[in-house]
Amino acid sequence: MAGSSFGNIFRVTTWGESHGAGIGAVVDGCPAGLPLCEADVQQYLNRRKPGQSRFSTPRKEDDQVEILSGLFEGRTTGTPISMIVHNKTQRSGDYSEIASYYRPGHADYTYDCKYGFRDYRGGGRSSGRETIGRVAAGAVAAKMLGELGITLTTYTKAIGPVAARRFDAEEIFRNPLYMPDREAAKQAQDYLNQCMKEMDSGGGVIECVVEHLPAGLGDPVFEKLSANLAKAVCSVGAVKGFEIGDGFAAAGARGSENNDPFRTDGNGRICKASNHAGGVLGGISDGSPLVFRTAVKPTPSIFSPQQTVNTSGGDITCRIKGRHDPVIVPRAVVVVESMAALVIADALLGGMTATMNHVKKIWG
Amino acid sequence: MAGSSFGNIFRVTTWGESHGAGIGAVVDGCPAGLPLCEADVQQYLNRRKPGQSRFSTPRKEDDQVEILSGLFEGRTTGTPISMIVHNKTQRSGDYSEIASYYRPGHADYTYDCKYGFRDYRGGGRSSGRETIGRVAAGAVAAKMLGELGITLTTYTKAIGPVAARRFDAEEIFRNPLYMPDREAAKQAQDYLNQCMKEMDSGGGVIECVVEHLPAGLGDPVFEKLSANLAKAVCSVGAVKGFEIGDGFAAAGARGSENNDPFRTDGNGRICKASNHAGGVLGGISDGSPLVFRTAVKPTPSIFSPQQTVNTSGGDITCRIKGRHDPVIVPRAVVVVESMAALVIADALLGGMTATMNHVKKIWG
Amino acid sequence: MAGSSFGNIFRVTTWGESHGAGIGAVVDGCPAGLPLCEADVQQYLNRRKPGQSRFSTPRKEDDQVEILSGLFEGRTTGTPISMIVHNKTQRSGDYSEIASYYRPGHADYTYDCKYGFRDYRGGGRSSGRETIGRVAAGAVAAKMLGELGITLTTYTKAIGPVAARRFDAEEIFRNPLYMPDREAAKQAQDYLNQCMKEMDSGGGVIECVVEHLPAGLGDPVFEKLSANLAKAVCSVGAVKGFEIGDGFAAAGARGSENNDPFRTDGNGRICKASNHAGGVLGGISDGSPLVFRTAVKPTPSIFSPQQTVNTSGGDITCRIKGRHDPVIVPRAVVVVESMAALVIADALLGGMTATMNHVKKIWG
Amino acid sequence: MAGSSFGNIFRVTTWGESHGAGIGAVVDGCPAGLPLCEADVQQYLNRRKPGQSRFSTPRKEDDQVEILSGLFEGRTTGTPISMIVHNKTQRSGDYSEIASYYRPGHADYTYDCKYGFRDYRGGGRSSGRETIGRVAAGAVAAKMLGELGITLTTYTKAIGPVAARRFDAEEIFRNPLYMPDREAAKQAQDYLNQCMKEMDSGGGVIECVVEHLPAGLGDPVFEKLSANLAKAVCSVGAVKGFEIGDGFAAAGARGSENNDPFRTDGNGRICKASNHAGGVLGGISDGSPLVFRTAVKPTPSIFSPQQTVNTSGGDITCRIKGRHDPVIVPRAVVVVESMAALVIADALLGGMTATMNHVKKIWG
Repeated sequence: MAGSSFGNIFRVTTWGESHGAGIGAVVDGCPAGLPLCEADVQQYLNRRKPGQSRFSTPRKEDDQVEILSGLFEGRTTGTPISMIVHNKTQRSGDYSEIASYYRPGHADYTYDCKYGFRDYRGGGRSSGRETIGRVAAGAVAAKMLGELGITLTTYTKAIGPVAARRFDAEEIFRNPLYMPDREAAKQAQDYLNQCMKEMDSGGGVIECVVEHLPAGLGDPVFEKLSANLAKAVCSVGAVKGFEIGDGFAAAGARGSENNDPFRTDGNGRICKASNHAGGVLGGISDGSPLVFRTAVKPTPSIFSPQQTVNTSGGDITCRIKGRHDPVIVPRAVVVVESMAALVIADALLGGMTATMNHVKKIWG
Repeated sequence: MAGSSFGNIFRVTTWGESHGAGIGAVVDGCPAGLPLCEADVQQYLNRRKPGQSRFSTPRKEDDQVEILSGLFEGRTTGTPISMIVHNKTQRSGDYSEIASYYRPGHADYTYDCKYGFRDYRGGGRSSGRETIGRVAAGAVAAKMLGELGITLTTYTKAIGPVAARRFDAEEIFRNPLYMPDREAAKQAQDYLNQCMKEMDSGGGVIECVVEHLPAGLGDPVFEKLSANLAKAVCSVGAVKGFEIGDGFAAAGARGSENNDPFRTDGNGRICKASNHAGGVLGGISDGSPLVFRTAVKPTPSIFSPQQTVNTSGGDITCRIKGRHDPVIVPRAVVVVESMAALVIADALLGGMTATMNHVKKIWG
Repeated sequence: MAGSSFGNIFRVTTWGESHGAGIGAVVDGCPAGLPLCEADVQQYLNRRKPGQSRFSTPRKEDDQVEILSGLFEGRTTGTPISMIVHNKTQRSGDYSEIASYYRPGHADYTYDCKYGFRDYRGGGRSSGRETIGRVAAGAVAAKMLGELGITLTTYTKAIGPVAARRFDAEEIFRNPLYMPDREAAKQAQDYLNQCMKEMDSGGGVIECVVEHLPAGLGDPVFEKLSANLAKAVCSVGAVKGFEIGDGFAAAGARGSENNDPFRTDGNGRICKASNHAGGVLGGISDGSPLVFRTAVKPTPSIFSPQQTVNTSGGDITCRIKGRHDPVIVPRAVVVVESMAALVIADALLGGMTATMNHVKKIWG
Repeated sequence: MAGSSFGNIFRVTTWGESHGAGIGAVVDGCPAGLPLCEADVQQYLNRRKPGQSRFSTPRKEDDQVEILSGLFEGRTTGTPISMIVHNKTQRSGDYSEIASYYRPGHADYTYDCKYGFRDYRGGGRSSGRETIGRVAAGAVAAKMLGELGITLTTYTKAIGPVAARRFDAEEIFRNPLYMPDREAAKQAQDYLNQCMKEMDSGGGVIECVVEHLPAGLGDPVFEKLSANLAKAVCSVGAVKGFEIGDGFAAAGARGSENNDPFRTDGNGRICKASNHAGGVLGGISDGSPLVFRTAVKPTPSIFSPQQTVNTSGGDITCRIKGRHDPVIVPRAVVVVESMAALVIADALLGGMTATMNHVKKIWG
């Protein structure tokens, strides 16, 4: 199946493996006339680059983006924007060991089941490098949203058992974990240091807040804004859960607690007095900030010995070598933000055709 | 945007409002030769019918399905299967009150924002009756899965703060809440009685387990099996969260705990010694049972007075009248199962084209 | 495969066979607020109804449409518009003969090859009645286009060897063949009478002209307006060819003849001095009338004896019984117009997202 | 709108302009395990390269393809195959003249209407170089078809008024026009020489024959094999018409002439005694060779003076400079073949899910 495209109107197609020539994304359906340059995209890619702290892989990856098409004189032309990030640090090493068994928590086994064989050099499309395409495309979407005043703020809500207890927007970029709480960030680092010492890894929770979104985005049935966010986020490797607004906590609440009362603000505009819903009602944006969280599992590559099976069907104990992130949550923050930007860009363009009034504004 | 279709190869399109002629679904892409009759679909629809206990609306809805096309001599023909459930108990009553304000927790306000006006008689497509189309289609998908030995078991995992602590498959259909734990079901009923007494409502958690699924279903990037399940389930009204396997708990675990070791079973087949992953690795089914949960918010229609805004922009206190479910979780169980069946049917058909070996098996 | 939907944003899904409960269409993505009633659709359906002359089957088909959803107080709500036309005159006769062999020129054989069996009672989805769904949906699209001043004029350009030599718009609805040339219509009727006398059938050419279309519709590559028209029209049963503007004649022309010079009109607006292109340049509408033609083969059901093969693999001579159109061209005129309306409606909605200026007009 | 993808299951996304970094295609959904190398693709690209005769532009374009992803050890991995052809001979010349007016027969004007501005350096996506992406993808599709024994033969049927009168397969690659008739090829060259002498250009007709296709491909309604071929071919720049089998001639024939009798061959297999239908019945392949033709307009860039309008709205006379093909038909032959291969590959994969028997063959 052709499963490498995302979005209907603002659509991205990604390609590339960790051990090929590079990773790329083609953004199709971006409106013409959007100011865009490589720096816009690079800024996003830099947030997922490894090697920024001891909690990410020491692999050096430059990850410089090149825009190959779709721009003219600094603006998008309305035609496909093709972007490439060349792979540079592939080691042409010996893969015979990794080829010989199935790493627990990885897609090695399921790839073999699906395709009959696999590119064992780096996980194929299940490599973390696959997210480069998402981030490059998300940067374009975010640029479009920015033109309309829509902003996305994404950060680490929790690392292992350590959750942020306060929100300081400026703190997010001050610690290597992208946590909005300085104290929690310190404790989280202690936790990760302990994990590393024990040749283990950790997971966490990422939260994203989208502000200044118009009310009325998303569709009432299958294409609910929340449903597309859920898919977008759960399509990122290592993600095991998604919740919007109060999420799983809402299941334990009562209607009288969970319902958000409508109120008028000083200017006669309708708003909600609380935001348990997380910015969607019936799957359609309600004008409040969109708030969702996602659960990221601990990195499956750990240095401790693990039980597994080799490709000849024998039970073995394996020890994974190489350079690995003890936690991928901080680097996944910008990936989640990118996926959110893609969903919202698509919903915005899709919402343009919702009423005859809109149609007449353009063609009347 | 055309947002009423779901699935790529096995695709359903639904239509209908609570106050129109009926609700329908068109299933397109179902393979020819599947034995199917109205009773197969009716059996699923009966599980979502109201009026089965004091915890669902006393509205009488017969919800008899009629299959209008796509069958010949008891088998599917490969062409669209159109199904309709006629609406019967619409009251032609006075809607002027409900038309005049925005019910908290409902889609009234967002519909007005999106479409400029709304069918205020019953929530339009945001009505709970919209799920009839999903269930009718899901029944067809489940029938196809059944032919391949794949089974789905879905039940109420929690009602408000009361969670099932044990699993007894036979108990599921013995209590009105579809809980697999007799004791918990009793406590949950006490909780709901208390909610009703206080003119309030409750939510809960639904769990679904899919067994005997082949390994290798789902795609590595955007069309991960888990991502499509997330979208499917989060597209159901009132759903606020989705998690697969250990879900949000995985975020707090370590890699050494969360990784599932591979082992060979007695017959030399590869399996996992645990199932923290919930049946997917890299978004592709791994041969273990698929296990996911979803959070359902408390019914927004409560009898207590609520603060809201009327369509003239005035702050008011409203009291919702009529007949409403104090909890929708039990009736949503079969909706979640239906959505899962649709996702898996689509992934199965999509997976048929994954390798040249498959292609040659059919065309060689 | 799910092959019963057409269009991306303005999308129709059709269902139904000649011998089931009915034929239907679900229009999804129609903007909210469009005035629409059953009479709008019925008017289109009446143009394809049989029994209007001796050149169409004497079968009586009432073909009354019922709109089941998507309307509220005379306007579309933005949600799916489900329409049904009940089948009434299915004879529960003896189909054993037709089941026993493959009719030449029909899809009997290819259905068996594709699906392993077929509903032999009336051609299944290859029945001419399948077009009812197209026409019902096309009527909705045409209504939307009408609101924007866009008009479609469709007529019979030729019947067998008899081509219209002049264009009189009022004449189209005055003769049973929908030809815009009274004299040619007479000759065409003579030709068809002769065909019928000889137990034979005829084909023809249909032409469609779309006026007042804005320039700039359609996409530059795969989604060219001309490409989508070609698919739309060639997806109608019995169609064997499509051409736009000068079409096949352009292949024999020189560039200096075929190029349309641009000129300014009296009001300084840019227009073309000729229209060899038929209203598209690079697949995008150029503001001139869209003009295309389609070739319809002679009705395959003829009363003369024919050589064929039965389902047991024996060579036989068959004689098709029953009631059949000696020519389907006149009834196909509105089908072609409907498909054109669907393509243009989709292109109009798709074109709304082409530029940031448009985006800001709606969301800015 | 996202209009740069083609196909549902075997899907290509193309990108790139004549004056950017390059042209590319991403093939998504190709089954794993197909042997493939750059030479397979290069062989196809070489057939569309300019500079092979005096009838194509003397521009030198190397057009070497590089495969960036989706291959491992000489076989496809089932993940996206990204291909790039770098642009080399872009002249960084003075485009101020071409920017200042609208070339007749080109998409300059319609691009401005659609996008508000255009990349005037080379036609943007309406450049002939856009077809490189189609051919690269088509080569992959053709390779897959070849593994199943399906062959495509494509050639020039006519140049201007000169049509091939005989078919000699070996002759096709012996003359620069890819005509299967040596005599006609000579006359066609005379015709083109005359066109060039008069600073004019010519068009023509391309025919494609697909053999050894299984019966049963294509869908009965909108996704007819013929409809998708029509779209595929009419999406190629300069194409003005499509016909299958007898095409427009069928419109003038009688049913008794146009129907193809079924017969059994010596081995008891069902075949057709003639092939007026061109290999499809009801839009589904019937086991006979697929035969279709397409009309290509004369090259719009001619050296004669032409009347047009400049971007300031003034009527002017223009003279197009530069290097242009006096006829594009010969180079378009492989483009048409590529589009046909893409359609058939998609139909083959789509047809795998048509019956429960197929489903059980893979998953049973």
